[in-house]
Amino acid sequence: MNRSKQEEKTDNRPLGVFDSGLGGLTVVAAMRKLLPAEDLVYLGDTARVPYGNRSVGTICEFACQDLSFLASKGVKAVVVACNTVSAVALPEMRKQMPKMPIFGVLEAGVSAAIRTHKRRITVLGTRATINSDSYRQSIHAIDPSLVVKSIACPLFVPLAEEGEISGPIAEAVMNLYLQDLKQNPPELLMLGCTHYPLLKQALAEYLPPDVQIVDSAVAAAEFVRDHLRDNHLMANSDKTGEDRYYVTDMAGSFYEQAQRFLGWEVGHVEKVNL
Amino acid sequence: MNRSKQEEKTDNRPLGVFDSGLGGLTVVAAMRKLLPAEDLVYLGDTARVPYGNRSVGTICEFACQDLSFLASKGVKAVVVACNTVSAVALPEMRKQMPKMPIFGVLEAGVSAAIRTHKRRITVLGTRATINSDSYRQSIHAIDPSLVVKSIACPLFVPLAEEGEISGPIAEAVMNLYLQDLKQNPPELLMLGCTHYPLLKQALAEYLPPDVQIVDSAVAAAEFVRDHLRDNHLMANSDKTGEDRYYVTDMAGSFYEQAQRFLGWEVGHVEKVNL
Repeated sequence: MNRSKQEEKTDNRPLGVFDSGLGGLTVVAAMRKLLPAEDLVYLGDTARVPYGNRSVGTICEFACQDLSFLASKGVKAVVVACNTVSAVALPEMRKQMPKMPIFGVLEAGVSAAIRTHKRRITVLGTRATINSDSYRQSIHAIDPSLVVKSIACPLFVPLAEEGEISGPIAEAVMNLYLQDLKQNPPELLMLGCTHYPLLKQALAEYLPPDVQIVDSAVAAAEFVRDHLRDNHLMANSDKTGEDRYYVTDMAGSFYEQAQRFLGWEVGHVEKVNL
Repeated sequence: MNRSKQEEKTDNRPLGVFDSGLGGLTVVAAMRKLLPAEDLVYLGDTARVPYGNRSVGTICEFACQDLSFLASKGVKAVVVACNTVSAVALPEMRKQMPKMPIFGVLEAGVSAAIRTHKRRITVLGTRATINSDSYRQSIHAIDPSLVVKSIACPLFVPLAEEGEISGPIAEAVMNLYLQDLKQNPPELLMLGCTHYPLLKQALAEYLPPDVQIVDSAVAAAEFVRDHLRDNHLMANSDKTGEDRYYVTDMAGSFYEQAQRFLGWEVGHVEKVNL
């Protein structure tokens, strides 16, 4: 071990990631690539998915239970891999656990979007995320002169979950929500839902080639890496990170869907009650 | 009041109807038409919808909680307006409340299908309903010589909920699941999900005109009417039935979706915890 490594402070506690369901596994996949030494603990609240169409009060209640569960696993930080929760529940969660670093995909996505210096941004998300107006508000809090358009795409989640990510159905659904964008494309398209990275290629082919796409899963992984590095919270780089998966319900299609989001076969999974 | 009416026994307690979400309102609509004097109490477990992709154990647990809630409202019978619950949880529910008459849309649909005397039947349903194989088993328990085919159509529920019940998306989704049926049509198509009546017209236009379609919502209403009449449990026909609606969560799109399934504007709705 060289001298600089010996001096560098490390923190081998795991990172917690949660989502209402399995979509957040796209964030796990991005984190595994960028943070190979980190242990990851994933919680999917599959018994109560989707959060996207629920009321704000219910979403906050569920999110605080998810947070408590991950805290009980000794995590050093929590990544909220759910845009709906990121959009409406972070203040409540931070009030519940003021010392825990909590990162949302929303702030990560917004931060990545701002860094592109593009000026005309379109945000795609679930109905709850778009109705909350949080993306536009977060972008305008940083730069009120940016032009932000928001489009709710409620059928994108079932498409991603069913693997219908190209072909005539995906095409018809994109026509429903995005036909106008084809005529008046933004400079930047923000995927404001962790399911949407599965549709990234179809969207890139549907829209003009000069539209840049920000993938909130990758943005969240980069955001966490920077935070860990800046605060000397990275795991010892000599080790290989391990993954643990918890879900609140496990349907027959679980492994098939998990693999779709993760990109590899999910290992041991434990069913838990929150 | 004439003599026969005075002698006829009546029962003015309300009828209970529940579903995992709002799809069961298609059953309420059918019951309101056939049973104008009955008071109806509807429970939509919208905080935990959809049940369709959950495990059998979880579905049974939720169903028994739904049943207890309706029983606490003094109902004389319970209609399970959820195919998933009907397919997997009725034995458990009847064990919990042996004296309560409990009817499922599944048995109602199967009974209606048998009465048509058609011999080649295709059942459409959610993945959980189709995987449970309950429709085929129930049909074959009555007549093992019938030819039964089952097709899971998981994207039909989001289509119905988003009102995408005709046009290019509905067309593309029907092509995904039913292209084979176009070539080899059944004599009878059974809509094994309370959301699917909204797609009835699109399905009728998609398939050859001689395919008969059994709508499980209408079948359930007929089934309940016959049971009430045969057991002298009908409400006094001089009165006009009233509806009460309970949900476990109420999202922004609630009223719009409810009206889509019900066919009229839903009145007073109360949010409850189970």
